[in-house]
Amino acid sequence: MALIVQKYGGTSVADPDRMRAVADHVAFTKRHGDQVVVVVSAMGKSTDNLIKLANEVSSVQPGREMDMLLTTGERVSMSLLCMALADRGIDAMSFTGSQVGIITDTAHGKAKILEVRGDRLREALAEDRVCVVAGFQGVSTAKEITTLGRGGSDTTAVAIAAALGADACEIYTDVTGVFSADPRIVPQAHKLSHVNFDEMLEMAGAGSKVLALRSVEFARNHHVPLHVRSSFTWEPGTWVTSEEPSMEDPIISGVVTDSSEAKVTVLGVPDRPGISAALFEPLAAANVNVDMIVQNTSTEGRTDISFTVPLADMKVAEGIVAEVAQQMEAAGVTHDNDIAKVSLVGAGMKTSPGVAASMFRTLAENDVNIQMISTSTIRISVVIASSDLEKAARCLHTAFGLDSGQAYSAPLPERK
Amino acid sequence: MALIVQKYGGTSVADPDRMRAVADHVAFTKRHGDQVVVVVSAMGKSTDNLIKLANEVSSVQPGREMDMLLTTGERVSMSLLCMALADRGIDAMSFTGSQVGIITDTAHGKAKILEVRGDRLREALAEDRVCVVAGFQGVSTAKEITTLGRGGSDTTAVAIAAALGADACEIYTDVTGVFSADPRIVPQAHKLSHVNFDEMLEMAGAGSKVLALRSVEFARNHHVPLHVRSSFTWEPGTWVTSEEPSMEDPIISGVVTDSSEAKVTVLGVPDRPGISAALFEPLAAANVNVDMIVQNTSTEGRTDISFTVPLADMKVAEGIVAEVAQQMEAAGVTHDNDIAKVSLVGAGMKTSPGVAASMFRTLAENDVNIQMISTSTIRISVVIASSDLEKAARCLHTAFGLDSGQAYSAPLPERK
Repeated sequence: MALIVQKYGGTSVADPDRMRAVADHVAFTKRHGDQVVVVVSAMGKSTDNLIKLANEVSSVQPGREMDMLLTTGERVSMSLLCMALADRGIDAMSFTGSQVGIITDTAHGKAKILEVRGDRLREALAEDRVCVVAGFQGVSTAKEITTLGRGGSDTTAVAIAAALGADACEIYTDVTGVFSADPRIVPQAHKLSHVNFDEMLEMAGAGSKVLALRSVEFARNHHVPLHVRSSFTWEPGTWVTSEEPSMEDPIISGVVTDSSEAKVTVLGVPDRPGISAALFEPLAAANVNVDMIVQNTSTEGRTDISFTVPLADMKVAEGIVAEVAQQMEAAGVTHDNDIAKVSLVGAGMKTSPGVAASMFRTLAENDVNIQMISTSTIRISVVIASSDLEKAARCLHTAFGLDSGQAYSAPLPERK
Repeated sequence: MALIVQKYGGTSVADPDRMRAVADHVAFTKRHGDQVVVVVSAMGKSTDNLIKLANEVSSVQPGREMDMLLTTGERVSMSLLCMALADRGIDAMSFTGSQVGIITDTAHGKAKILEVRGDRLREALAEDRVCVVAGFQGVSTAKEITTLGRGGSDTTAVAIAAALGADACEIYTDVTGVFSADPRIVPQAHKLSHVNFDEMLEMAGAGSKVLALRSVEFARNHHVPLHVRSSFTWEPGTWVTSEEPSMEDPIISGVVTDSSEAKVTVLGVPDRPGISAALFEPLAAANVNVDMIVQNTSTEGRTDISFTVPLADMKVAEGIVAEVAQQMEAAGVTHDNDIAKVSLVGAGMKTSPGVAASMFRTLAENDVNIQMISTSTIRISVVIASSDLEKAARCLHTAFGLDSGQAYSAPLPERK
C-alpha cells in the first residue's frame, strides 16, 4: 500500500464533467489499494474572475482581504470533489489549508510555508478516508488566512507529500509530461520519461511552464518524487526525481524556449565599482524580475550592460533605466522586445565538455545570430532574434540527438 | 457613540456598484461617530449558483461538504466590502463565522447558534475598526464549518448584536420596510414605522417574507431592536421592538397574504384517538411543513381533517397521505392547489374582542367564501380561493382602517 498525493490544476477541474472525471480517477487509485491525499486548485478561470471582481470593486486591495477572497476558489473545488467522491461510494473529507495545519509566514499574497502539521490528514487516512485539500493556501503565524502565490497548489502538494512521507506526488495538468522541447515549436519533440530535479529546476528557470520553480525546489530539498502527467489522457507522464543520469543517457535532456522576455542594453556605462548595483537595485525594489545579465569587457573605461526582463515588466523597467542611465552619464539605452531565449538543459553536460561550442556551431551553420549568452553547470542559454526561434530550437533538437525518441530509459515503476 | 450592527442581504451587494454603495453607507455611519459591525450575505444569486454547481457534480451531497461550499459566498462578499471600505479610507477587517467565534451545534445545513464569543470583534472595535462578518455561517462544537439555513444572515446579525449589546440591528434589504399589506396586492398599503416582536413573528408565520422567523425570535428573546430598511433608498424603515402598542394605536397592524400553500382534505376519517398522529407523524418525518390544521366536529363517528402544506412539498405529501388514508380506511382524499391564506395581525387584538366577527362579516359582504379558519391571540387567518385573494386583502385593508396612513406613531429616534 502506497501513499500517493495527487494534485489537480485548474484545467483538470474546470467544469462538472472534469470534476467527475477526476473523482473517477481518485476512486480508481483508492480502490487499487493506495492511500490518497488530493490537492485541488480553483476551477478553471475562477481565481482570475475573483481578481477581476476585486478590481471592479476597489483600487485598494489589502493583502489580508485579497487572500480571504482568493482562497474561496479552492474551497469550492475541494467540496465539490468530495461530493463527487461520495457519489462513487468513496469516503472523502475536505480540508482547508488552515484545517491541515499549513503554517506560513505573514506575507499575504506570497506566503512561505513554515510547517505542515497534518494531524487531521493522518487521522482521516487512518480512518481509511480520501483527503481532499485546498491548494494555494495556509494560515499564518498571526492566525490569518494566506495564499502562496502563483503555482501555490503545486507547492501545497509537495509540502504535504514531504510532511506525510508520501511515496509519490502526482502533478496532474493539461499536458502529458515534460517534453524534450515545446511540441508547438519543435514537432519532433517527445515526452521525457524521467528528468532529475536539477534539470527540472533549470528548465523551469529557462521558461518551461510545466512546474512552478518553487515546488520543484521544495521537492528536491525534501526528496519527494514527482510524477507530472495528464488528467485528460491519464497516461504515464514524466518522473522528476533525484536520480542522476547514467552514462548511457543522452547528454542533453531538452531544448527550452521562452518568448516572454525583452532585452535592455545600457550603452557606454562608466566602468567603475557600484555601477551594477546602481542599475539593478532600483529594478529589484520595483519588483522587476531581471533574468539574464551580460556585461562586456570594457574598452576605454566604458562598457555595455545588457539584461532581459519579462515583457510585462518592460514599461516599469524602461522608466527606471532611463533615469539611472542619465545619472551615471551612460551613452544611451536601447530596448528590444523582439527577442527569444533558447536553452539547452542536461545533467550530462557536467561531464561532457564542448556542449557550448557545439551549440554555437549549430546555430552559426543555421544563420542564427547570438545576442547574449549565459551558462550554468547544466544549462546554456542564448538570446536570439524572435524570428529565429523556431529554426534555432529545431536545429538544436536535431543536432543533440533528441529527435529519435526517449532521452532516458524509464527507471521507475509506473502506475496507471 | 452607538454600536450599530448592519446586515446587507444578497440583493444589496449583488454587483460591484451595489457593493460600493453599501461601502459608502457604512463609511457614512462610521464617520457619523458610531461603531459599526457589518454582516453580509453572498452576492445576488451566488448561493443558488453554488447549489446548481453541486447538483451538476453529484447527487450525493454530504452536509459537511455542502456547508464548506456554500460558506464561500459570504467570504467573497466580506472581502470585497473590506476592500471597498479601504478605498474610502475606512480601516475595516473581515471575519468568518469561525473567526468571530459563532459556535453552533453540528446540524449541517441548519445549525443552531449556541454561543457568540466575539472576542476578535471586540478587539477590532476597540482599535476603531469597522468589522465585516460573513453571515449564514458558524463553526460547530466538532470544529467543522456549518451553515444556519435560509435567512441565516439575519440570524447572524441579530446574534452578534445580542452578544455585543448593540444599540440597534439594521436589516438592509430590497424593500423599504414592513408594510400594512403587500403593495403589489393592496395598492393603498403603507409602510409601518413600528411593529412589535409578537406581531412580526405572526406576520412571518403568516407568510411575510421581510424577516426570517428565526431571527425575529432571536431578537425578541435577546431584546435586540431591529430596523428593517432599504439599501436602495436608505430612507428610515420599520422598527421592530418589544414596545407594546398604546391605546391610540390601531387594533390591526397589517393584512398578510400567502399564495405559496396548498390544501389537503382527508374525508370520512374514523374519529378515534391516534388518528391525527398517524397522519402527521409521517409528514413530519418527510420534512413536510404542515401549516394550518382544521378538524371538524365528527358526525356518525367520522370526521374530515384539512391542512395546508407548501406547494413545493405537495408531491411528497400526496404520496404519504394517500397511503395513510388507505390504512385508516378514510373515505377519500382531496387536494386543492388554488387556495390562498389571508391573515390579520395586530397586537391590539388581545384587548379588542370582535375582530374575528368583523373580519368574517367583511369577507361575507364581499362574497368571499371561507374554507378554513385558524387563530392565535394576535392573528386570525382564513384560507380562501386564490381567485378571491386580491378582493379579500383589499376589503380587509379598508375595513380595518389601514388605508389612511400610519398604523402606529413612530416612538423611536430614527437614524439616517
